[in-house]
Amino acid sequence: MVSRDIMRSTARGFKKYYSPDIKGELRLDTNTNVLGANPAAVKFIREQKIDLNDYPRTYSDGLRCALASLYGLEMDNFVAGSGSDEMLDVLFKTFTEWGNDCLVPYPSYSLYDYFAQMNGGKVLYSELTDDFQLDVDDIISSRAKIVILASPNNPTGNSFRQKDIEEVLAGFGGIVVADEAYGEYSENSMIPFVNEFDNMVVIRTFSKAYAMAALRVGYAVANKDLAEMMNAVKIPYSLNSLSEGAAIAAVKDQDFIKRSVAMVRTERPKLSSGLSKLGFDPFPSDSNFILARSPIDHAALTDALKKKGVLVRDFGSKRRMENCVRFTVGTETMNNELLSKISDILEDFS
Amino acid sequence: MVSRDIMRSTARGFKKYYSPDIKGELRLDTNTNVLGANPAAVKFIREQKIDLNDYPRTYSDGLRCALASLYGLEMDNFVAGSGSDEMLDVLFKTFTEWGNDCLVPYPSYSLYDYFAQMNGGKVLYSELTDDFQLDVDDIISSRAKIVILASPNNPTGNSFRQKDIEEVLAGFGGIVVADEAYGEYSENSMIPFVNEFDNMVVIRTFSKAYAMAALRVGYAVANKDLAEMMNAVKIPYSLNSLSEGAAIAAVKDQDFIKRSVAMVRTERPKLSSGLSKLGFDPFPSDSNFILARSPIDHAALTDALKKKGVLVRDFGSKRRMENCVRFTVGTETMNNELLSKISDILEDFS
Repeated sequence: MVSRDIMRSTARGFKKYYSPDIKGELRLDTNTNVLGANPAAVKFIREQKIDLNDYPRTYSDGLRCALASLYGLEMDNFVAGSGSDEMLDVLFKTFTEWGNDCLVPYPSYSLYDYFAQMNGGKVLYSELTDDFQLDVDDIISSRAKIVILASPNNPTGNSFRQKDIEEVLAGFGGIVVADEAYGEYSENSMIPFVNEFDNMVVIRTFSKAYAMAALRVGYAVANKDLAEMMNAVKIPYSLNSLSEGAAIAAVKDQDFIKRSVAMVRTERPKLSSGLSKLGFDPFPSDSNFILARSPIDHAALTDALKKKGVLVRDFGSKRRMENCVRFTVGTETMNNELLSKISDILEDFS
Repeated sequence: MVSRDIMRSTARGFKKYYSPDIKGELRLDTNTNVLGANPAAVKFIREQKIDLNDYPRTYSDGLRCALASLYGLEMDNFVAGSGSDEMLDVLFKTFTEWGNDCLVPYPSYSLYDYFAQMNGGKVLYSELTDDFQLDVDDIISSRAKIVILASPNNPTGNSFRQKDIEEVLAGFGGIVVADEAYGEYSENSMIPFVNEFDNMVVIRTFSKAYAMAALRVGYAVANKDLAEMMNAVKIPYSLNSLSEGAAIAAVKDQDFIKRSVAMVRTERPKLSSGLSKLGFDPFPSDSNFILARSPIDHAALTDALKKKGVLVRDFGSKRRMENCVRFTVGTETMNNELLSKISDILEDFS
């Protein structure tokens, strides 16, 4: 057995990531789009004429142009790659040195720690306030080189207040990353302001509202100087041509995104009140998922739902999310199925 | 203008990568498979039924199984990802610390420097011998943490002697990476020996002989301990589902690879002797390309060929490759076209 002593010291404790065995369950655990695969992407892949033997464009210019057009920015404001995960990796590689402090709010997305440590960084946490908002003074007083603000935040579901993010941008000494993985569902985005800030990078994904998780596409938006630095660091042509083409098609079909967001805005309050009626304590959400404190043991609930064919994500053994479970907002039918199965489980437990 | 002082110190000098404007030229500059796109991959993409809304398997188990079966190894000997470029990145992240020396033979693939520096490493060079073979004693005496041996080597074209690689494996104190990007064309591979060595990782790509550069697929092979460390470090589901599916189909169709390799073995000596007759000095090759010293100025030759619709890769201003140009071995028709156009250019220059 080869000892892990040969590994990068900051990565020695790494384990493999969440990877459930799926047997056809209803997946309300991944916050993907419950309306199903992006139709424009599906059509593109079905009809695509790309020569598979040709390298992609080195910096995904086609997708960067389409995004520039969507947001009224320029191609050179964008970095495109293999999922927003690659963007996170590139951010750490571009803007941090070995041993730099990297600030992450708590609770937030657990993989930030992994990206920081994988790139030799040290993770510090800034506690969110009681209502899961930013502690602006705490963040500003930090000497970290980078801070990552997921807004809407995962797994809590709420957006951070825009004025708080702007205060952080003005006062924080390093790069401020706004991770808008669920940005399509929120009223707020920092993308319109990228040229106003020297130190802001917004990242987005095609895996959630865009319903293309299989294709691994993500991007970063920033002022042109920061975007150019990131492009120089990122692996050339990391985004494959099929995924890029499908993403371009999806960007040009905003109707699907609008329908998807409208569905979530209609169903989210109904799911939230349904959970409340069953004794849950749901947190406010600006996203396509709801974190809620369970009236029964979190693990028992998650297991029982799995046996009934519904996957949800258990956060109940994490600090500040004691006994909490995260539910993707489904269609009306999915949510009714979820609530009815929870109701049955609660009866068995009473 | 935001200063590059905010960048990782080892990455501040990075520029964007080679990215020519293509206008339908015959591409003998990228060493992809001149027989065209992998037919099994094309068929798979045409008929694929993947739900684009589903995340890929976290560690590309399907492809790792197919590769295990191809090589008579186990799935857990493999790491799969978005191009062998991702494998290089993961190697540095897994096995090097900030400031570690990373040893790279010279001349070899220029992007190794980029991967080392991007990950905080310091690049040292080991000069290849006059016949572009490894200086085994020099490598063994290095205290570098990792050495990358491209075999066949790019851009020189030759394989390293297997006994030299084995001596390096026995004597070198760190991880030995055998980059077999062109391994399908060579008689030798280190893959059958991965379980014999504690410190060896072989990497391969689907972009060259497999003719799927558009899809960005690569993999690493090592003993299970090293492979597990790399899997724990790599970004989960970095390989998109379509590319994975196409790669599985391509692995199962070895006939195309055999035909492609046979074509290169037939055409390579003919191209080499054609170049010799025109006054070039071609180096021996075990790959699908030939490096050759030009009888006229390298840049003038490359430019003139471009004007005539043929792209080749100019290495002529690099040390030890003075006035050298690299030609992908084409089909008989392509090679005749190349040689005839070179002949015309030489006449214009005489």
